[in-house]
Amino acid sequence: MHYFEDFRVGDRFRSQDHIVVEADMVAFARQFDPQSFHIDPQAAKQSIFGHLIASGWYTAALAMRLRTESGIEVAGGLIGLGLDEVRWPRPVFAGDTLHLEGEVIEVRESRSKPDRGIVRVRELAINQTGQTVMSMVTALYVPRRTVTAAGASRG
Amino acid sequence: MHYFEDFRVGDRFRSQDHIVVEADMVAFARQFDPQSFHIDPQAAKQSIFGHLIASGWYTAALAMRLRTESGIEVAGGLIGLGLDEVRWPRPVFAGDTLHLEGEVIEVRESRSKPDRGIVRVRELAINQTGQTVMSMVTALYVPRRTVTAAGASRG
Repeated sequence: MHYFEDFRVGDRFRSQDHIVVEADMVAFARQFDPQSFHIDPQAAKQSIFGHLIASGWYTAALAMRLRTESGIEVAGGLIGLGLDEVRWPRPVFAGDTLHLEGEVIEVRESRSKPDRGIVRVRELAINQTGQTVMSMVTALYVPRRTVTAAGASRG
Repeated sequence: MHYFEDFRVGDRFRSQDHIVVEADMVAFARQFDPQSFHIDPQAAKQSIFGHLIASGWYTAALAMRLRTESGIEVAGGLIGLGLDEVRWPRPVFAGDTLHLEGEVIEVRESRSKPDRGIVRVRELAINQTGQTVMSMVTALYVPRRTVTAAGASRG
């Protein structure tokens, strides 16, 4: 279990690999992003992508799955406060193999909650040719192992 | 169909309502975010939330669905370049009724592609009591209806 005190700027992680299955990708899009270039292979050929592509939200959901399988066990769970700088620089196609890489870029105590801190991680979802298909900065809410006396008196 | 020229800063939209169904919320979490406070009602009682809550990525996926049902038909489809300032200020529970509200905050031509522009929209997912459960700024890639002579010569 990782607590706030265990994180350092520069810490890195890498998830397992995940192969994108067309049926799963299309099922997601039918439910949440039913645009023709996500669900209809024929129509997708006429789109600017020229091919069926994953919804960016499917890639985001897969990234969450990969995050839970990355081996970073945060005490209390992976609780995201927010995201910044989310980009999808290249499309994801069925058959792609994706993994997630992360690097801690900031570790700071919560101003309002002395029993926890905020760990910001720059994350990249990367395909089998090494191209980044999604990038983001994730802010995680992480409990402290120990609460300082000053913190306890404020809490 | 909306083209780049049709968007103005201050334009607003509102989606339909969507009722969050526990079975759907849990099915999503089992697939993409299998943490106990998203999938196990008993364990969720012991979490800091005290109750089963939706994965933030489920809320994000629902927001995409609501976006496609908001009545804004963008020529070529709703193509997101990226997101900024994504926050989940309050949890989403089964039975909540959510809708999405958006306001255009920036309209600018693409520097590299004269045939399209970028429209930035501040969006809020709001529950039945008027609380914001997710907020974000979405950058959409929107084709121009007309390409300027200068643009055409560059394109």
